[in-house]
Amino acid sequence: MTTWTLARRAERLNPSTIREILKITERPGIISLAGGLPSADTFPVQAMRDASAAVLRDTPREALQYAASEGFGPLREWVAQELATHGLMAGADQVLITTGSQQGLDLVGKVLIDPGSTVAVESPTYLGALQAFAPYEPEFVAVEGDDDGPLPQALEAARGARFLYLLPNYQNPTGRCLPADRRLALVQRAAEIGLPIVEDNPYGDLWFDEPPPPPVCASAGDGAVYLGSFSKVLAPGLRLGYVVAPRAMFPKLLQAKQASDLHSPSFNQRVVYEVIRNGFLKEHVPTIRERYKAQRDAMAAALREHLPPGCRWQAPVGGMFFWVTLPAHLDATALLPRAVGAGMAYVPGSPFYPQGGHANTLRLSFVTVSPERITQGVEALGRVLRAC
Amino acid sequence: MTTWTLARRAERLNPSTIREILKITERPGIISLAGGLPSADTFPVQAMRDASAAVLRDTPREALQYAASEGFGPLREWVAQELATHGLMAGADQVLITTGSQQGLDLVGKVLIDPGSTVAVESPTYLGALQAFAPYEPEFVAVEGDDDGPLPQALEAARGARFLYLLPNYQNPTGRCLPADRRLALVQRAAEIGLPIVEDNPYGDLWFDEPPPPPVCASAGDGAVYLGSFSKVLAPGLRLGYVVAPRAMFPKLLQAKQASDLHSPSFNQRVVYEVIRNGFLKEHVPTIRERYKAQRDAMAAALREHLPPGCRWQAPVGGMFFWVTLPAHLDATALLPRAVGAGMAYVPGSPFYPQGGHANTLRLSFVTVSPERITQGVEALGRVLRAC
Repeated sequence: MTTWTLARRAERLNPSTIREILKITERPGIISLAGGLPSADTFPVQAMRDASAAVLRDTPREALQYAASEGFGPLREWVAQELATHGLMAGADQVLITTGSQQGLDLVGKVLIDPGSTVAVESPTYLGALQAFAPYEPEFVAVEGDDDGPLPQALEAARGARFLYLLPNYQNPTGRCLPADRRLALVQRAAEIGLPIVEDNPYGDLWFDEPPPPPVCASAGDGAVYLGSFSKVLAPGLRLGYVVAPRAMFPKLLQAKQASDLHSPSFNQRVVYEVIRNGFLKEHVPTIRERYKAQRDAMAAALREHLPPGCRWQAPVGGMFFWVTLPAHLDATALLPRAVGAGMAYVPGSPFYPQGGHANTLRLSFVTVSPERITQGVEALGRVLRAC
Repeated sequence: MTTWTLARRAERLNPSTIREILKITERPGIISLAGGLPSADTFPVQAMRDASAAVLRDTPREALQYAASEGFGPLREWVAQELATHGLMAGADQVLITTGSQQGLDLVGKVLIDPGSTVAVESPTYLGALQAFAPYEPEFVAVEGDDDGPLPQALEAARGARFLYLLPNYQNPTGRCLPADRRLALVQRAAEIGLPIVEDNPYGDLWFDEPPPPPVCASAGDGAVYLGSFSKVLAPGLRLGYVVAPRAMFPKLLQAKQASDLHSPSFNQRVVYEVIRNGFLKEHVPTIRERYKAQRDAMAAALREHLPPGCRWQAPVGGMFFWVTLPAHLDATALLPRAVGAGMAYVPGSPFYPQGGHANTLRLSFVTVSPERITQGVEALGRVLRAC
């Protein structure tokens, strides 16, 4: 009998807790506030149709052929120009197009993480990042924070880490947005102790009343890597994101990209560029903001009305998520079957903590369900919690 | 100053020698026989137009949304049924859709290779596989072979390896196709010493006179993993391939896939399925075979006519490449600038050998250049060699 021996890192690959949970909650009729998906109602279908047709009419051979690992030149240029308007000055030669920003996380892990090395993260943090980094066998250290994000003085615990992973805008899962002064203080403290930063910004364009402060990378010079995505402003099914890296590190990320999938689909890159090159996002993204803001309002009102005393949350000022802290004696994982029985679903918060625990937390998405259904879903959650 | 510390595996990431060489050879007017690209003349542009329009008309929300990491169900089903016609019996639940088969190689490496573990390869072998595996820090052991592929008795040198990487059909770079009896002997010997096989088959459909023997995986049971691709029969710019794995290993590959890029683009998967679901490839692939066969014939004739005595090659019976062995005192890398000066380009063979050496070998592609230009290119090569 043939013996397959798995790599040690394969032990760190595990089924996504959340994907397993989502399977349970995918019953017909359930009001799911559990997903992490953007609303399909925001997908610019007609623009995609026109762009696909144009690309296959004008440059079919190029769109269907192998292409440069760096990505499609005009798209890299667009990203550099777009980021400049947010204060992040980088050359197009520093932009690497990736197969979704999840691949950006994987490449960062591949190039920077040794087994046993330390990676500092917010607590809670984005689960997909933990999953991308885990196979490279780091030790995760959680940086203490408050409602404004990680505390600069707490970075001491991250000294010597390969990097601090930070999601400053409308974080998944908490919805938290770091104020400008906190960003600057973190950058300054990180520079003092020589701690590199990996900044992930999938949600930054989804602000409701005012844009978020400039990215951390805008003031971190060569001390930070930036990850962006087209998933939330166009559509995730295209799988396109990007990494912006210091010039000294760029070649290693590029070589890791080449080893991983040669390049991201040339067709998709050209279609996205065709959609966005004439300022389409300036018209389109405000319609997403408006929609999500109304849904945020509906959820905020429903939580105020239906959640029992002892529950805590903050209304997010952008993004897709509310983060709810239940009374300390409640366990969101244990309660989930009852919530599903009552007709709604959420995601328990514990998996977002690198060291687990925090059983009394949960995440609610407000973007894929109508305001009416949000109200019904939160009302059902309230009934379950009141019965505890 | 912030210090970025690279992972040890990053030392194993290096610029692709061949990509660097290709840059030199991309001068206008050069007849390049160096590329590893399929011919853009074979891309089914109209079918792609129709399929893209149909997908964005009928299922735009699904095509543009996040999707299952395993891949699009009907496409997985199609792959399983297609492979069954080649004697490889596997369930659709064993098929993982990947972002090109390069990602299949990366996932195999991620799940199976520990630093210092051994990976057995043909010598020469596909350079992209060496690049995908290298960051996981294996030791490569070259299995001795002859014109029919690796020798079964030579597998002893691979005992204890994590797997044997094998490209049995019209190998890149040699064009070599393993006969049926050699395949069976290798499978039997590998099973005896408990050596798993990773079979890569990007070129199997590109046969000229008769199909290749059944895949190694058809007789290896759970002792083999199979990698396939849509790059050579449809178009590489879509970046779609697949891995077929034993059920016991499938979950780890799936989790590695999820960590790497969540899933391959749903849009691309649906477009490809739309193109192929009604038997399109049965009409389309023969047109590719016919084209490539005529180009193979042109190159075979040109080599016979123009290469000086002491050069050796075999005409491939499928695929995209001729492999030429020059007289022992010649160095194909050193000669390349002279060839480019004479108006043609090839790829030196040395980088395809895991331990280097074999400076007197080179690879010629016959698929992207017309028969007339092939003749001119080989004639130029002949002039350079005769002048040595």
